[in-house]
Amino acid sequence: MLPDVRTVDWVDGAIRAIDQTLLPATERWLTLSTVDAVVDAIRRLAIRGAPALGVAGAMGVALAARTGASEDDVRKLELARPTAVNLARGVRRAAAALPDPDAVLAVALAIRDEEMASSEAMSRLGADLVTSLCGPSPRVLTHCNTGGLCTVVGGTALGVIAELHRRGALGGVVASETRPLLQGARLTTWELGRLGIAHRVAVDGAGPFLMARGEVDAVIIGSDRICANLDVVNKVGSYAHALGAKAAGIPFVVVAPESTVDISTPDGASVHIEDRDPDEVLGYAGTRVAADGAGAVNPAFDVTPHHLVTAIVTESRVLRP
Amino acid sequence: MLPDVRTVDWVDGAIRAIDQTLLPATERWLTLSTVDAVVDAIRRLAIRGAPALGVAGAMGVALAARTGASEDDVRKLELARPTAVNLARGVRRAAAALPDPDAVLAVALAIRDEEMASSEAMSRLGADLVTSLCGPSPRVLTHCNTGGLCTVVGGTALGVIAELHRRGALGGVVASETRPLLQGARLTTWELGRLGIAHRVAVDGAGPFLMARGEVDAVIIGSDRICANLDVVNKVGSYAHALGAKAAGIPFVVVAPESTVDISTPDGASVHIEDRDPDEVLGYAGTRVAADGAGAVNPAFDVTPHHLVTAIVTESRVLRP
Repeated sequence: MLPDVRTVDWVDGAIRAIDQTLLPATERWLTLSTVDAVVDAIRRLAIRGAPALGVAGAMGVALAARTGASEDDVRKLELARPTAVNLARGVRRAAAALPDPDAVLAVALAIRDEEMASSEAMSRLGADLVTSLCGPSPRVLTHCNTGGLCTVVGGTALGVIAELHRRGALGGVVASETRPLLQGARLTTWELGRLGIAHRVAVDGAGPFLMARGEVDAVIIGSDRICANLDVVNKVGSYAHALGAKAAGIPFVVVAPESTVDISTPDGASVHIEDRDPDEVLGYAGTRVAADGAGAVNPAFDVTPHHLVTAIVTESRVLRP
Repeated sequence: MLPDVRTVDWVDGAIRAIDQTLLPATERWLTLSTVDAVVDAIRRLAIRGAPALGVAGAMGVALAARTGASEDDVRKLELARPTAVNLARGVRRAAAALPDPDAVLAVALAIRDEEMASSEAMSRLGADLVTSLCGPSPRVLTHCNTGGLCTVVGGTALGVIAELHRRGALGGVVASETRPLLQGARLTTWELGRLGIAHRVAVDGAGPFLMARGEVDAVIIGSDRICANLDVVNKVGSYAHALGAKAAGIPFVVVAPESTVDISTPDGASVHIEDRDPDEVLGYAGTRVAADGAGAVNPAFDVTPHHLVTAIVTESRVLRP
């Protein structure tokens, strides 16, 4: 299906989205027609990825608008997950057109279209940048999933990697598995396979060592929120890769749309980092592995301070912190 | 059973060892009476941990000696796994007493007794050091498993943590889960539970962020080989934690017996890093999560350069690289 099919869209008056929790084993499509169903899909990560959350949140307001959206509907959507700024931003932008259902839907579809256009522009700009930084055939490491699943089509960091591949300018891909929910191992491998791009999975802890050993030329990741001081909030494990990249002297490139840049958040320390269920950490793919009595700490995101970031690529510019 | 029971020992003319691959769900004890059985147990990580490998390797030679050990027996044991120096060293030391079976067994039992004594001495020295570096109630992060399972009783890094607990001088423990084989989540939680020490598991990628967020006062890990220049080879993921500790300005302490110090290896770059089966990374316990067609890179160990190491504690000294 990828790279052409929209992973989240508005079809016949409802949200149609692929259930990301079941990939790669099963391709099941969800039809969501109530606010509660959208909130549930977002909370359980059936829909995930900062840009996709913005689209789904805005479409959730469009669903609510048809039956007279309450403030509670808007708040539930906005707060379904706390860290990615795109969700609250998409919800608020759509809610500003309330109560007219057609106007709200028009905003939601505009956000969808903007994210699709952004993805394409970012991919080109990012590929240009990585080539200029690394030369003709870089071996890249990426973390979590940043492809069409996290946008609508294309992707952010993975969009850049796909564009490098299309240009014949990609030397290799390491997909960091991204514990606890394995978005790298499950989703990035699924997308790369469909794109025909050879790749290797590595455990998250191996990233910095692979960089030190000279097997990686650049780290390319997405973001859930870029702060005013250019601190980057992204999936937990990103900061460790940034430390590894700095130590190895290789570029650490962040790719995200302008909708992820939030100048109202001064820095990473100001961001609400979502703490998720300890059971995600204490087991693997639904099977508990830890001994009885073990607790867990499960921050879903981390903060990469701006001084570790080589460049941030959006659809319209390249920022160099 | 822990902390008193010997996790690997010589009983009734055979090696008796707990099968670490089945923990924490099942406590099964292995009786190994042939070289091939010992090699298999080591390769599949039923017996693991640098000091325990030295003991098991020497006892393997004692098994071989009873039927006239061949050079091939010795070589198979020595090379069962390549990275931890203790294995080859224990095997060679026992083999030097060939062909006399009683003399070989005496060496193997001496190695066992030395590791037990070392564990106790290291735990005390390490606890003294950590208290002097961090004050009375440090919150520590550890990686992989370094308790009685990896020695005979007690442990290396986990021995220090247990000693701090006994002294009432431990503020908390984060156990890094240690993908791909989850020795932290499975084995360290199992040991800490038996020791009555509260703990939280974290995914490996979260370690540096927890340090940056001020939730960790020291990192304490073991080692599989300490090089002449004091580079530290340890379970993959250790280097990332060392980078995190350096960035956070907290101590990174390595605890290992003198039998792990190898002055014939000049530096980390000289060490044969074991690459293991890609399937370990692409799933867990027989459940594959990655998409079809995905490959993997699976270095089992990494190298922490000496400049990131605050101190190395052995049974007899504290080295400060």
